[in-house]
Amino acid sequence: MNDPGGAPMESIEETVTEGVVRRRFDLEVEGRQVPGIRWAPEGAEPTATILVGHGGFQSKEAPNIVEMAAQLAHECGYATIALDAPGHGERRTEEQIRQQEEVLRRLREGGVDEEMRRGRERVVDEGTRTGSDDSGPARPPRMVREWRALLDALEGSDPATGPYGYWGVSMGARYGIPLVAIEPRIRCAVLGLFGLGPDPAFRATVESITIPLLFLFQYDDELMTPESGLALWAAFGSEEKTMHINPGPHVGIPVFERDASAAFYRRHLG
Amino acid sequence: MNDPGGAPMESIEETVTEGVVRRRFDLEVEGRQVPGIRWAPEGAEPTATILVGHGGFQSKEAPNIVEMAAQLAHECGYATIALDAPGHGERRTEEQIRQQEEVLRRLREGGVDEEMRRGRERVVDEGTRTGSDDSGPARPPRMVREWRALLDALEGSDPATGPYGYWGVSMGARYGIPLVAIEPRIRCAVLGLFGLGPDPAFRATVESITIPLLFLFQYDDELMTPESGLALWAAFGSEEKTMHINPGPHVGIPVFERDASAAFYRRHLG
Repeated sequence: MNDPGGAPMESIEETVTEGVVRRRFDLEVEGRQVPGIRWAPEGAEPTATILVGHGGFQSKEAPNIVEMAAQLAHECGYATIALDAPGHGERRTEEQIRQQEEVLRRLREGGVDEEMRRGRERVVDEGTRTGSDDSGPARPPRMVREWRALLDALEGSDPATGPYGYWGVSMGARYGIPLVAIEPRIRCAVLGLFGLGPDPAFRATVESITIPLLFLFQYDDELMTPESGLALWAAFGSEEKTMHINPGPHVGIPVFERDASAAFYRRHLG
Repeated sequence: MNDPGGAPMESIEETVTEGVVRRRFDLEVEGRQVPGIRWAPEGAEPTATILVGHGGFQSKEAPNIVEMAAQLAHECGYATIALDAPGHGERRTEEQIRQQEEVLRRLREGGVDEEMRRGRERVVDEGTRTGSDDSGPARPPRMVREWRALLDALEGSDPATGPYGYWGVSMGARYGIPLVAIEPRIRCAVLGLFGLGPDPAFRATVESITIPLLFLFQYDDELMTPESGLALWAAFGSEEKTMHINPGPHVGIPVFERDASAAFYRRHLG
């Protein structure tokens, strides 16, 4: 997947498990190494690629991502790619690892309080920074720039690995919404666990999205209200958009929604 | 399907089209003939049966029912059975046909007004009557009694045609909700296009339902608000219940939701 047409991608390791090829790679973006993993069906060119944005405090290799990647490879013949977001996975400093573990400990012990909320916000804010080397106000958030650099690298590869879909809930939706709003190479997206707040710029971004969407929401989400989720879904500019609501907490999307995601991608990516 | 164990079912006609056997039958319930249709895979015993309650002003052979029955036969190996509701399909008097066409004409011409609403209510009320021969306050609505008589007839047949699922939106949910609340033979249900009103008895019925549910809703439904739909879904007592919301009017559920219904039944009926 190295080609002068895109950003440099260095393959680190390749293993095969139960018909799925797992390739650990580093993508160079703006002088930084972004660690990623690509899962693909063994012995066949994938017919589409799904980019998966992991949740806050998770990583490119969260169990739900690994399981979904295997399902998409086996059932749909798709590749799946996940990147560690800034401040997550292999991109954490020792200090960040300590901070995140502290927040997770508080969450387990005492539920969600204001301090936890702020700590969580600091972590998921990492990928929204435009960077101290920002050269203008129109520059997209860092995580969006990294996904776009990945698409540049993939487009430069032979054979092409598109068409592309996106999957991301919670922090994966926070970064995915501005990504799919400006990135025409992504044809459809599964988003979720996110709500509409008062920020008019965010609303404008949401309204500008017109690709087919599947939006997953948990009715008892301890981080946001069903009303804010419904308002976000209603604001998307897409003609085809379906909202799936299940009971249960933030981290508790039923496993059968993975089948719904696969069916959604098959309908739009073939 | 005739057996002393259940209500008399008389087969009227049987035809085969594209691998689906369509059997037109009459079911005798409380001295009345209830016209029904059963679709089943050709040359194989069905592995489950889906009972479909049609919408108001529609009939047992509405196009969406015929198409879903074919899909369930081909993809799942299921039988599908639909009955004409009281005051619908072949059960309409000349006067009812005239009245329904008048209401439909008004609906096309002038949108929904109060007179249309009342006319529509009169029609869908038919199946909720307990009848002038009602012998006690606990007697279920007529349509519920007819579905239960059908299940009695099916249970008496050899081989058994269960397990059973239910599918019904709008008037099909109006009758389906009291049905699945008292009928343990129905294991799971797709409902939709219905909302929660102020009636405490209806709320109690809704809360008593505990089988897995898929609930379909149209965000721009001209007959009810998203809030009333969400409140109905939230009130169901079921542990597994998923709400699918799509944009568009009352009569406009996307065709891809048929795939979602099939996937839901496969998960619960095998």
